[in-house]
Amino acid sequence: MRTIYWDYDNDTVKMIDQRQLPWEFVIAEFDDFHEVARAITEMVVRGAPAIGAAAGFGLALAARQSQASDRMTLLRDLEQAADILNAARPTAVNLAWAVRRVLRIATDEELESVDDVRDAILAEAQRIADEDVEINKRMAYHGAELISEGDTILHHCNTGALATVDWGTALGVIFTAHEQGKHIHVLVDETRPRLQGARLTAWELHQRSIPFDLIADNAAGHFMRTGQVNIVLVGSDRTAANGDVANKIGTYKLAVVAKENGIPFYPVVPTSTVDLELANGDLIPIEERDEKEIVSVFGKSIAPKGITARNPAFDVTPHRYVTGIVTEAGIVYPPFVKNLKQAVESE
Amino acid sequence: MRTIYWDYDNDTVKMIDQRQLPWEFVIAEFDDFHEVARAITEMVVRGAPAIGAAAGFGLALAARQSQASDRMTLLRDLEQAADILNAARPTAVNLAWAVRRVLRIATDEELESVDDVRDAILAEAQRIADEDVEINKRMAYHGAELISEGDTILHHCNTGALATVDWGTALGVIFTAHEQGKHIHVLVDETRPRLQGARLTAWELHQRSIPFDLIADNAAGHFMRTGQVNIVLVGSDRTAANGDVANKIGTYKLAVVAKENGIPFYPVVPTSTVDLELANGDLIPIEERDEKEIVSVFGKSIAPKGITARNPAFDVTPHRYVTGIVTEAGIVYPPFVKNLKQAVESE
Repeated sequence: MRTIYWDYDNDTVKMIDQRQLPWEFVIAEFDDFHEVARAITEMVVRGAPAIGAAAGFGLALAARQSQASDRMTLLRDLEQAADILNAARPTAVNLAWAVRRVLRIATDEELESVDDVRDAILAEAQRIADEDVEINKRMAYHGAELISEGDTILHHCNTGALATVDWGTALGVIFTAHEQGKHIHVLVDETRPRLQGARLTAWELHQRSIPFDLIADNAAGHFMRTGQVNIVLVGSDRTAANGDVANKIGTYKLAVVAKENGIPFYPVVPTSTVDLELANGDLIPIEERDEKEIVSVFGKSIAPKGITARNPAFDVTPHRYVTGIVTEAGIVYPPFVKNLKQAVESE
Repeated sequence: MRTIYWDYDNDTVKMIDQRQLPWEFVIAEFDDFHEVARAITEMVVRGAPAIGAAAGFGLALAARQSQASDRMTLLRDLEQAADILNAARPTAVNLAWAVRRVLRIATDEELESVDDVRDAILAEAQRIADEDVEINKRMAYHGAELISEGDTILHHCNTGALATVDWGTALGVIFTAHEQGKHIHVLVDETRPRLQGARLTAWELHQRSIPFDLIADNAAGHFMRTGQVNIVLVGSDRTAANGDVANKIGTYKLAVVAKENGIPFYPVVPTSTVDLELANGDLIPIEERDEKEIVSVFGKSIAPKGITARNPAFDVTPHRYVTGIVTEAGIVYPPFVKNLKQAVESE
């Protein structure tokens, strides 16, 4: 079962509601692109590749919702929908990438009727989703070469089937290494504030019976310093042309401490999350989310009333801490400016 | 009001129940040293200096509970109580230090009756508590020299009045700098798993109207890398002779990232937490606590049922990441082996 998919019987978008995991398994259904945008903001669906697919299907909904009877009107409606979807979350680049890719279809001169355009848009959104699964399998295959028998892998946030359409990025590498018969162990950062590690990564590993221990984010350094970690694998929401990586808050600390302890640090990154137009990571906008994610844990207050909090959702890891970047085109090593461009352009 | 004190009307030990903060302010009362040991293990009272005082008062209770009518029997009873108190938490050295100091009184040949010994033990426990407050004020005075007008201070765990008998260690430095009229801002690590930052440090700062923001532990690196932190202040549960510092889990990552960004990192450490008998930090026993602290947040489950977790409560920061150590005898700089010994012996 996919994390996000189009229901061809009902012409709706369906997604696993990730806010409810691991307590309940709920499928949310959407027939309005505004609701899809809200679902992205509220993290019903999250993970850079998954929200790319969500944006694609969101535009397919927008095309169906539009009353347009001519192509120019449809295109105008789609551009408005695209703005709303793009604003749902600022950091992940897949969102804008998927929106751009689907919008391009709407301008295809060879499509004759407005309904042809609607169908072509849905087909393109479906293609983005299908390709994501295939790309993840290729990344996982390349990345699994980095994993040796007996390795302990440190993992941050959730980068599995739930962060993508299926299989996953960094967690996909772990799944593939496990399928290859390697005996591995995973240390799962719980990933405050939204606890994607505790809720989602633990759930996915538990379902697949892959051995792991959940740890507080604070404990990752202790396990690295005491020789209990062989490799660190993370995802990325946007990677700059020079190899700087924006990813879930906390990634930067892991990368610095990994380097300090001689532990390889690899982001696992589909080329769709590489933004060659950005020279470096300091140009990546960092989303700051609601304080309530910090002062409470799923409804349980953990701090005095009336205080203030800061909640950056991502941080930037400069490329000097990055050992290599796993992409579907292979593993990219420094110099990233040259080699990352080559990998992206090969896809 | 002190975090822990002897109630002379009832001959009991009283403490603020820190598990209930910030939701409720509850004073727990103990008339049995076994309960005091359990309160230390369960973190009714926590923080190295506070549990030192708790152990001292615990022995005063044990002396009162003992039915001994001769000094040898009393001493034997006290030694049994000392073993139980020492086992309550393995990492903090103040506990063993306070126990040793109080036990020494019991062997004082000048004390004539068993009741004289009982009184002398209580007096010594009271002295440990009183001295802690005085020592904290001296440390805070030295440490405040490190704080400049306008500084933003990153702080981990709780090191305030609640971690001590009163005033605090690292947080005491912040209180004193604030009292001196310096306009400071504090970034408060929430400090998973037990959230001492979110619950206790936020509560203490809020009560004193010192400006701060609560952050996820994961966000500390982002604020350091982007130039938003001037100094990092932490406590220590045990400091080795070479300046290696055992402190609340997560401290090590902060220290590495601080050094990487040229930000000074200072543990604030009464000399009673320095263990000159330990050559380095790798000899410090690291307490591993119950998995339930990781898989849930104050009763709210955050992970799938049936999974395993690791929960080291402390980590060790090698001295090469330590800019200096603030003690009541002044600020100690490298070489720590020589200068720390000198500071300890001056007290």
